[in-house]
Amino acid sequence: MGLFVGVDVGGTKVLAAEVDATGAVARTARRSTPGRRVDVRLLEAALTEAVEEVAAGREVDGVGLAAAGFVDAAGERVMFAPHLPWRGEEVRRRLTDLWGVPVALDNDANCTARAELRYGAARDARDVLVVTMGTGIGGAVVLGGRVHRGRNGMAGEFGHMQVVPDGRACECGGRGCWEQYSSGNALVRHARARLGHEPTLLEELCSGDPDLLVGPMVTAAAEDGDLVARGAFASVGEWLGVGLANLVAAFDPELVVIGGGVSAAGDRLLEPARTALARSLVGGGHRTVPPVVRARFGPEAGAVGAADLARDSLA
Amino acid sequence: MGLFVGVDVGGTKVLAAEVDATGAVARTARRSTPGRRVDVRLLEAALTEAVEEVAAGREVDGVGLAAAGFVDAAGERVMFAPHLPWRGEEVRRRLTDLWGVPVALDNDANCTARAELRYGAARDARDVLVVTMGTGIGGAVVLGGRVHRGRNGMAGEFGHMQVVPDGRACECGGRGCWEQYSSGNALVRHARARLGHEPTLLEELCSGDPDLLVGPMVTAAAEDGDLVARGAFASVGEWLGVGLANLVAAFDPELVVIGGGVSAAGDRLLEPARTALARSLVGGGHRTVPPVVRARFGPEAGAVGAADLARDSLA
Repeated sequence: MGLFVGVDVGGTKVLAAEVDATGAVARTARRSTPGRRVDVRLLEAALTEAVEEVAAGREVDGVGLAAAGFVDAAGERVMFAPHLPWRGEEVRRRLTDLWGVPVALDNDANCTARAELRYGAARDARDVLVVTMGTGIGGAVVLGGRVHRGRNGMAGEFGHMQVVPDGRACECGGRGCWEQYSSGNALVRHARARLGHEPTLLEELCSGDPDLLVGPMVTAAAEDGDLVARGAFASVGEWLGVGLANLVAAFDPELVVIGGGVSAAGDRLLEPARTALARSLVGGGHRTVPPVVRARFGPEAGAVGAADLARDSLA
Repeated sequence: MGLFVGVDVGGTKVLAAEVDATGAVARTARRSTPGRRVDVRLLEAALTEAVEEVAAGREVDGVGLAAAGFVDAAGERVMFAPHLPWRGEEVRRRLTDLWGVPVALDNDANCTARAELRYGAARDARDVLVVTMGTGIGGAVVLGGRVHRGRNGMAGEFGHMQVVPDGRACECGGRGCWEQYSSGNALVRHARARLGHEPTLLEELCSGDPDLLVGPMVTAAAEDGDLVARGAFASVGEWLGVGLANLVAAFDPELVVIGGGVSAAGDRLLEPARTALARSLVGGGHRTVPPVVRARFGPEAGAVGAADLARDSLA
């Protein structure tokens, strides 16, 4: 079947994985991401190390890259990536030359969608919205069983839909972007604002320092019945559903898949989202409302999808 | 080439047109729409009369219907249409039986998109957003050169994206829908609110009665330099661009086409929309911003697209 390696090139770490043709991960290797200001060769060296560790001396048939950034429509260049040094680099060609093996490239959200479509929650579906909730919101549009990339390769940038005019300032320069209300950051912001105002397990989890509060603490506290943490999920989940209603009105998909770190909370996130979606969606009585389900893959989604991309590109 | 008739079945009138294979309209016939509470046979009779008038005794090869309502994904039924008596009716089969000719069916916005794609502003384009601004906002998504209909045949219902939380109440039961801020209704509401507060040509055009104010009066007054009318277009145009930015972030199309009655104002509507789109769109410096152009077809768009649908379905 050949040895295919998928590499998720994230803002903080590189994860390489050997993925077989059933989507199972056989081996993984991790490296820290060298940072956005370094020479691109440092990043390339980290990728090389991770791929070699996974290959362990065997011949590699293809490598797929899932990059946390904008990848052009041709899958050749990383145009811009806020946490990586690539700026318009011809990443696919450079690494093909460097490694002497075929390389395929897409952005991380599209690779996640591919993993879910081929092996996960969207298997056999044709028209699907995939929304990844991590620090921010990423996403992908699947139409006719394929990831729709768009004119610039930038389809699926849902996180920056404006949902509140003159709303919260966003890192993108805009205001009121969806990810300011529904994301890992929004979850933490919501919980942090309650610290010191009402009793909560989060005080202890973050050692009384709001700056130390992170998403998984909110997930854990909600699991233990903490009302502040549950309130944060209720808010973020409801905003998730409101934004989904806009996207469902536009695409009319058969299924919505929610991935990313925040989706680990499962129905605590998804139930308020389903309720808000059903309430907000136009034409409710004359249509089916698509199911909103949790992604199958967690942190390995990007690498699994990237390996699948490589396998497909070279078939 | 055969005789193909497209019929736009709107809330107030029925427009039938003989359309040739170049998209040119040879003959038209009009009837009033009998209203939503009548027996469906009255509506069918009006359609029959209009088609027969256009046919003028010649044999018809196919009829396409553009219905102002929700058409199911199979193109068989009109599920719901606020201004028509059809409620889940098998319109395609009924009219095929009644007329003894092949009939094809889609909603009006999809037919408009088809007309622009085949003969109009989107000729040869592959990924296009078509937004029709009339009383409200309709729309269609073109992907890979084809109209994307979605799971329920309801893709493109852009008008009910929520753009303002707890915003203006909408006929759909929701609040803050896009068409409450950018549509013919929004244009008139904006202008009406200024009547009596500042001097405007609109006073005379509506004979001093705000209830008599309609969209074409605002278009005419803006043309004559009226500041109230121009302010209304500036507001509706800016909101158009803000909503487009959400859709462009999601689909990444190569082109945006604006049709419907309000688009008759041309750049007075489109310039503020282009400015707001460029300002609001995420990743501005790393992508192309799609051109926003006026549709080629006016009130005949639906009938032209419906005739093309019939021609295509029977080819």
